[in-house]
Amino acid sequence: MPRAETDPRLTAFRQHFAALPGPDLAAVENVRARDAHLTKPRGSLGRLETIVEWLAAWQNGQSKPRLDHVLVCVFAGTHGVVRQGVSPYPSEVTHQMVANFSAGGAAINQICKTFGLDLKVLGLALERPTEDFTLAAAMSAEDCADAIEFGMRAVPAGLDLLCLGEMGIGNTTAAAAIYTALFGGPAAQWAGRGTGLDDAGLARKAAVIEKAVALHSDSLDDPLEILRRLGGREIAALAGALLAARLNGVPVVLDGYVVTAAAAVLHAIDRSAIDHCIAGHVSAEGAHALVLQRLGQEPLLQLGMRLGEASGAALAAGTIKAAVACHRGMATFAEAGVSDKAE
Amino acid sequence: MPRAETDPRLTAFRQHFAALPGPDLAAVENVRARDAHLTKPRGSLGRLETIVEWLAAWQNGQSKPRLDHVLVCVFAGTHGVVRQGVSPYPSEVTHQMVANFSAGGAAINQICKTFGLDLKVLGLALERPTEDFTLAAAMSAEDCADAIEFGMRAVPAGLDLLCLGEMGIGNTTAAAAIYTALFGGPAAQWAGRGTGLDDAGLARKAAVIEKAVALHSDSLDDPLEILRRLGGREIAALAGALLAARLNGVPVVLDGYVVTAAAAVLHAIDRSAIDHCIAGHVSAEGAHALVLQRLGQEPLLQLGMRLGEASGAALAAGTIKAAVACHRGMATFAEAGVSDKAE
Repeated sequence: MPRAETDPRLTAFRQHFAALPGPDLAAVENVRARDAHLTKPRGSLGRLETIVEWLAAWQNGQSKPRLDHVLVCVFAGTHGVVRQGVSPYPSEVTHQMVANFSAGGAAINQICKTFGLDLKVLGLALERPTEDFTLAAAMSAEDCADAIEFGMRAVPAGLDLLCLGEMGIGNTTAAAAIYTALFGGPAAQWAGRGTGLDDAGLARKAAVIEKAVALHSDSLDDPLEILRRLGGREIAALAGALLAARLNGVPVVLDGYVVTAAAAVLHAIDRSAIDHCIAGHVSAEGAHALVLQRLGQEPLLQLGMRLGEASGAALAAGTIKAAVACHRGMATFAEAGVSDKAE
Repeated sequence: MPRAETDPRLTAFRQHFAALPGPDLAAVENVRARDAHLTKPRGSLGRLETIVEWLAAWQNGQSKPRLDHVLVCVFAGTHGVVRQGVSPYPSEVTHQMVANFSAGGAAINQICKTFGLDLKVLGLALERPTEDFTLAAAMSAEDCADAIEFGMRAVPAGLDLLCLGEMGIGNTTAAAAIYTALFGGPAAQWAGRGTGLDDAGLARKAAVIEKAVALHSDSLDDPLEILRRLGGREIAALAGALLAARLNGVPVVLDGYVVTAAAAVLHAIDRSAIDHCIAGHVSAEGAHALVLQRLGQEPLLQLGMRLGEASGAALAAGTIKAAVACHRGMATFAEAGVSDKAE
């Protein structure tokens, strides 16, 4: 199928990658200098220490990382490919779950409450599913640009940390298609059971992905075209939010399998484009562990979760809060009158 | 050296293991039945689901697990073996860090504040270090019984979860000696760098442990004697707290390398004695990962931490809070009007 990138916003999106802001290395040095005086053996907080360094690198102009404003942002979309029988749940569940988020009844609501995180749930044209990408591109250039723009605008100024999540029956199929297109190999290597496919369903899902990848094979050298043809609105919005966070100095915690597909698109455009992100957890869905390895990401948590809706990212945010609390709140050896020298 | 178990409280301690309370399987079934109706695909919260089942099994008579009263309890002790040069820090640091805990300046204070956990720090005869166990038993039978009793009394009634931690310069040497005595093999296999030994220090530490294990070799078939001879007061108190928690229906989150040594003693007495415990994390200290494997424990977190002072256990408690919040707070499919059937 011919390329149809007619929307100037997609061109503008591409142009940002030529001048991505880099890490604040001076802030990282500040963190290391303070850490060396805190009342603990050096290195003894392990990943909690390196997380604070990472926050310092990517939080816009903070000398000491802070987490006063943490937002969990969940994008929702509906998918034409659901007609191919790739999910045991009907597409209405996406609408119902968005209502459940609003009513406070979902897992993500409880996790946000536990750790005092703000939650924003944003549906993208839920009444208008994407095209079935086994037959056509999932989104027109305009649709894709709309969704990216929507995602970019969802990142408010002054945020200290952004946790990204998604909801969309059918979107593990879209994510698996993106991985297959980006990384190659058989679709079965990347696809998982989603909300609960049996073996026959999983085989059908892989076949659907193979068909889609074959249909769009002339565009697989372009990550943004992969996103437009095989993705979904929530995945495009995630890509936009990831870029906006980078431009605005906001570190990002990725949720699992589907969010990482948006990150993989950015990574394919520019290898440094997701340096401001960490993987909140490794999902039990499909080949998420392998994907993270390809992206050079070490997940913070490994709890066998595969729910989506930002649940893994928000859980990780709890741990990150503790890391920042240690760095900011601990006494130095001098303050506490603790010996910091060997005998 | 001859056995000297003269304190009747040690005999009483042993007798508890003949009649340990078992898990509440009906409560586990209740949890599973409710979980099946919550608005998520089955199993999609992974370890968060099995943690709630574990809490149900061991929380005394709760039909729905709750976490209203979580206590982090840190026991501190001083060690005669420090004279052998097994730590780069002097023993006074134990006193200084206990003061730091009281003043709110340590890592554990910040983690407890982050997750709303109560913290209790209990020093055990800090002005009177244990004997140097390369020369004699670390504790007399009376000392050991005092410490165990102290630990048992530290577990208040009505607790929903207990996180156990420790502080004690020299106590990774005691813990490594316990592992060597319980599991065999060279001390170097079990010992780690503690607060920051260099290679020569680590070799010295292993040699010190080998000497101690040889001295006490006639008693290594008895886990309680291993605790008395090679342990320390805080480790004995931890053993007491672990048993008291089991008797009182309180699930326990183990911290790292040293706390696990107390758990290993109980496990050696009775293979089911720590079923009410989970490993909050795997520590980077020594062979903690291997120890957890021997004990059949899958750590919740893997963050390369090695601080002690309950930091890993308290961090895990944050995740456990989120797990319980999901189980208690999520809507069912019926409540939320979400389709729970495949098409």
